[in-house]
Amino acid sequence: MEGNNRNNRGYLITIEGPDGSGKSTQIELLKKYFNDRGYEVVTTREPGGTKISEKIRELILDNDNEEMNGICEALLYAASRAQLVEQVLKPAIYEGKIVLCDRFVHSSLVYQGYARELGVNQVLNINEFALNGLKADLTIMIDIPYELGIERKRKQKKLDRLENGGDEFHNKVFNGYQQIVKTMKNVVIIDGTKAVEEIHKDIVKTIAELNI
Amino acid sequence: MEGNNRNNRGYLITIEGPDGSGKSTQIELLKKYFNDRGYEVVTTREPGGTKISEKIRELILDNDNEEMNGICEALLYAASRAQLVEQVLKPAIYEGKIVLCDRFVHSSLVYQGYARELGVNQVLNINEFALNGLKADLTIMIDIPYELGIERKRKQKKLDRLENGGDEFHNKVFNGYQQIVKTMKNVVIIDGTKAVEEIHKDIVKTIAELNI
Repeated sequence: MEGNNRNNRGYLITIEGPDGSGKSTQIELLKKYFNDRGYEVVTTREPGGTKISEKIRELILDNDNEEMNGICEALLYAASRAQLVEQVLKPAIYEGKIVLCDRFVHSSLVYQGYARELGVNQVLNINEFALNGLKADLTIMIDIPYELGIERKRKQKKLDRLENGGDEFHNKVFNGYQQIVKTMKNVVIIDGTKAVEEIHKDIVKTIAELNI
Repeated sequence: MEGNNRNNRGYLITIEGPDGSGKSTQIELLKKYFNDRGYEVVTTREPGGTKISEKIRELILDNDNEEMNGICEALLYAASRAQLVEQVLKPAIYEGKIVLCDRFVHSSLVYQGYARELGVNQVLNINEFALNGLKADLTIMIDIPYELGIERKRKQKKLDRLENGGDEFHNKVFNGYQQIVKTMKNVVIIDGTKAVEEIHKDIVKTIAELNI
């Protein structure tokens, strides 16, 4: 992390991967890693992260809203993100902090663009509008096989509207992640089948190599 | 309205104009006009018109959400519209009904694209995504001078977050309507300073002339 000359601008790192890939655990470890090196760290979850974005989150994930169509859903995700970007992410990065996002634009491309079949480019367009010039410095994609994701998911007790999407939908999500990472820039794929500490080491190695 | 050969497809007519231009009154009169001629009429208000869209409406108009940024607002309007389009408008038009919308895409172009300065083309893009191929057959823009709109607005007791936007914002909205109607297709401008019944006659004349 030494040697950057970006006028003390912080960094935006997004962590992506299917349900059950271990994103939250890795974000906690990464937060500690950066804290130990003197960085202030902001972590966010999507959708959510501001008062307004949390209200939008409630709408999206509420099982009572099962009639919500994919286009509405994609626009709500983008709306939640737009508020998060201006109110939290841009100020934090401007102040030199490290921002770790649990899911970001790639999740929308996979879930709405690919799995809901709305078109990856269409969903990318509305997200570029939402991001208003902000770009992630690095996206870490934690890759696990479909069967492992489903197994871990089944152990959870309470599923929200998207997690309730059925096996066919989740299969599409897994395929979507495989497709998206091939075409997007600044994405590093990490093997999520290893032990937690091993995965953390791989992520730290990636960050050191990229010298962000 | 005779002589159409569109396989009994209905019509989508949107009514636009600044606050205080008399849109609701004219929609009621127009509804009666079409009902008297044997048409089933569906009227909607935006944002809103479905269970999910009404929940989004609450978010947008709540004075408690004053920190909402313009991009988030524009995406929420589009999300509300996307749900309305698939759940109400397309089925109604398919069934041969007349749909009268109190505000539609043009309001977003004026309020978010022009008055909030997000860019008319940008806002048009996200709305084309939301509409998923649907187009209005006719847009009726009720034109009133700025001073008359403000005067009528001040007589209202309770204003929502957008109506509370201040004189500068409302001035931009008025200018926005003037600009938008010059560039968009299928828009007919109606003089909103006349008596209610005169305005209704002008609207009916327009509809008859266009033979929609």
